[in-house]
Amino acid sequence: MIGAPMTQPKPAAPFVFDPPSRVLLGPGPSDVPARVLSALARPTVGYLDASYTALLETLQQQLRDLFRADYAETLAVTGAGTAAMEAALYNVLEVGDTVVAGVHGYFGDRLRQVAERAGAQVHVVEAPWGEPTSPAAVKAKLASLGTAKVVCVPHGETSTGVCQPIPELAEAAHAHGALMVVDTVASLGGTEFDTAGWGVDVAYTGAQKCISAPPGLSPITFSPRAMEVVRQRKTPCASWYLDLLGNLTVWSTPHKYHHTGSINLVYAMHEALNIIAEEGLAARVDRTAHTARALWAGLEALGVPLSVEPAYRLPTLTAARVPDGVDEARVRAHLMSEYGVEIAGGLGPLAGKIWRIGLMGASCSRRNVMLLLTALEEALREQGQAVATGAGAAAASAVFGED
Amino acid sequence: MIGAPMTQPKPAAPFVFDPPSRVLLGPGPSDVPARVLSALARPTVGYLDASYTALLETLQQQLRDLFRADYAETLAVTGAGTAAMEAALYNVLEVGDTVVAGVHGYFGDRLRQVAERAGAQVHVVEAPWGEPTSPAAVKAKLASLGTAKVVCVPHGETSTGVCQPIPELAEAAHAHGALMVVDTVASLGGTEFDTAGWGVDVAYTGAQKCISAPPGLSPITFSPRAMEVVRQRKTPCASWYLDLLGNLTVWSTPHKYHHTGSINLVYAMHEALNIIAEEGLAARVDRTAHTARALWAGLEALGVPLSVEPAYRLPTLTAARVPDGVDEARVRAHLMSEYGVEIAGGLGPLAGKIWRIGLMGASCSRRNVMLLLTALEEALREQGQAVATGAGAAAASAVFGED
Repeated sequence: MIGAPMTQPKPAAPFVFDPPSRVLLGPGPSDVPARVLSALARPTVGYLDASYTALLETLQQQLRDLFRADYAETLAVTGAGTAAMEAALYNVLEVGDTVVAGVHGYFGDRLRQVAERAGAQVHVVEAPWGEPTSPAAVKAKLASLGTAKVVCVPHGETSTGVCQPIPELAEAAHAHGALMVVDTVASLGGTEFDTAGWGVDVAYTGAQKCISAPPGLSPITFSPRAMEVVRQRKTPCASWYLDLLGNLTVWSTPHKYHHTGSINLVYAMHEALNIIAEEGLAARVDRTAHTARALWAGLEALGVPLSVEPAYRLPTLTAARVPDGVDEARVRAHLMSEYGVEIAGGLGPLAGKIWRIGLMGASCSRRNVMLLLTALEEALREQGQAVATGAGAAAASAVFGED
Repeated sequence: MIGAPMTQPKPAAPFVFDPPSRVLLGPGPSDVPARVLSALARPTVGYLDASYTALLETLQQQLRDLFRADYAETLAVTGAGTAAMEAALYNVLEVGDTVVAGVHGYFGDRLRQVAERAGAQVHVVEAPWGEPTSPAAVKAKLASLGTAKVVCVPHGETSTGVCQPIPELAEAAHAHGALMVVDTVASLGGTEFDTAGWGVDVAYTGAQKCISAPPGLSPITFSPRAMEVVRQRKTPCASWYLDLLGNLTVWSTPHKYHHTGSINLVYAMHEALNIIAEEGLAARVDRTAHTARALWAGLEALGVPLSVEPAYRLPTLTAARVPDGVDEARVRAHLMSEYGVEIAGGLGPLAGKIWRIGLMGASCSRRNVMLLLTALEEALREQGQAVATGAGAAAASAVFGED
């Protein structure tokens, strides 16, 4: 018998957490495939185990394929997408540096806030929520400043469903000596993003959106131009934890200790990226686009207008206007209580005005679109909306039937 | 058929990661029980799902029990133990604040570095690696400074196996108006730590040591005194991601979005803490102490001296001197290749001179101690050390036989 007898009363049987069945059609997390959950649950090994460091090397190459960049400095940050956002900005910025931030929603504004906490002078180029940042306005701002250290913007704005064109912004940034930093949390792996081809210097994403891995590990990549800035900085990165040069000692040979990585989340992301490789990144992007078109047709047929112009519409996250006279929270409650279907409401100025529907990774399927449209029709009718029977599903079905 | 035909060649069958069988007796991660891995793999739900926020509330209370503090502001940081270290210091420190850091090893020095990155004026009280920080020296430093914002030190120094007495330091800190910040990454849940009783203001730990959960989620707690400092700060926390007041919006009612937490790691930690509650925290501390005494007897019987005086010896992490004439890395390679047993070498000035053997959580068992001593004896004999047959296991066995 090892150890003293129990001196505490035996506790009541502990609460076993048995998550309810959900269909995740919000802005993330998306549904995690069984294969990925199974990889997640494999036994934890040491962070310098030869098997694990070999896995890190495999994962690193998978991430380069995902970002479409052969940047040497590609890794995953041990934390949420916001940790990767901080890693992106904190490693290239020093106190007093100039930043131009394109803000057209909640996450562009978060980039602004993070840049300010890094001590930068941040110049905001604003666009209304629901529209992209204007490249002309960014160019004018850069011209007025002469030079800047960073231009930053989200590619997919999760709060509005806007997809921001990047190449023109990157060109403008480079013309003024600035690095182009892009948030792809809501887009990478679900819609086209070409890090190297578009001249993006720092891009990052999350695990739990279009990759469909469990949250907590966030891919990031740095161009050679960004690395020059990182290596020539005069003051250390404001965060020890997110310091890129420290993190890179884990991800380059010989692998060294910096902090304990999220070992099981690495297993899961590797398996999620295996799934992407099997499908093919281009095929996944096509599947997402096709599925989104079907959703959009279905929503419009239900009398639910889309918020964003077609040219800037993000396929992975659709913002839809709540019809007049409809209590949006009651609709979401109906979807959740009767079908276990999660969609989201609006943030900030769009709270109460829109729904946000994610079609990300494993959640992006014909099955889920047809279920959502059917359930949504029911919820709208419950609130007295006049909707032709089966109109949404029929419209989506027609799009799915197209080649 | 949804989506375009595959335009990329079908990739070769992906590499399936099948982790090798390991016995984790290093400084962490420790072996994760099957029950915890099974909880980890349950389906991911949304971060505001009612089932998940109820789980957060349960976990929060479990963490208060683990810390032995009823501090309202108790939560888990989405990241490694080092992220919690940054959260601890960044939330209470502002640029120019005075810190007294007790440094007697690698992680004390990391506290110093993090405090410096936060912009603090850091005064180091050094002790040789292998000894604790002297409370008298800390008192003298505080007296010479008059006042300070923070005194910080690791409770269990993972690099040396030293257990630092805390109550006297906390008293000295409070006498000079300073907060007591303690790193319990290597100790909490394995050896006695009484956050509230000892007057600790901020304590944090990791998932993957004495809790035996997978890494990536790090508990932290703040006393009311620490919260006063947090609420009265004049400048925002240097990290948006680790900003306590932001993080608390997730962990208090009504639960709100700040960043996407590591949902599956929350499942796993909850289950790991269920296991601790079932064993009883006091019983677990006793089991660890008893198992460590057996390991220590076995090591000494093998001619492997212990590095740390008994009064300051950490039961969860034992530092043992490599005997003269023994190639320490070759011993570790033998344990790993023949038995899948992981122990660690030394860091910094102790590299090549010590082994570090963890007895943490699920890894802390009679089975593992007997296996390690038997395998270690073999490895030592392979290098020509004269060791009486079965001496280590016999000595440990005798201790295990004690009541």
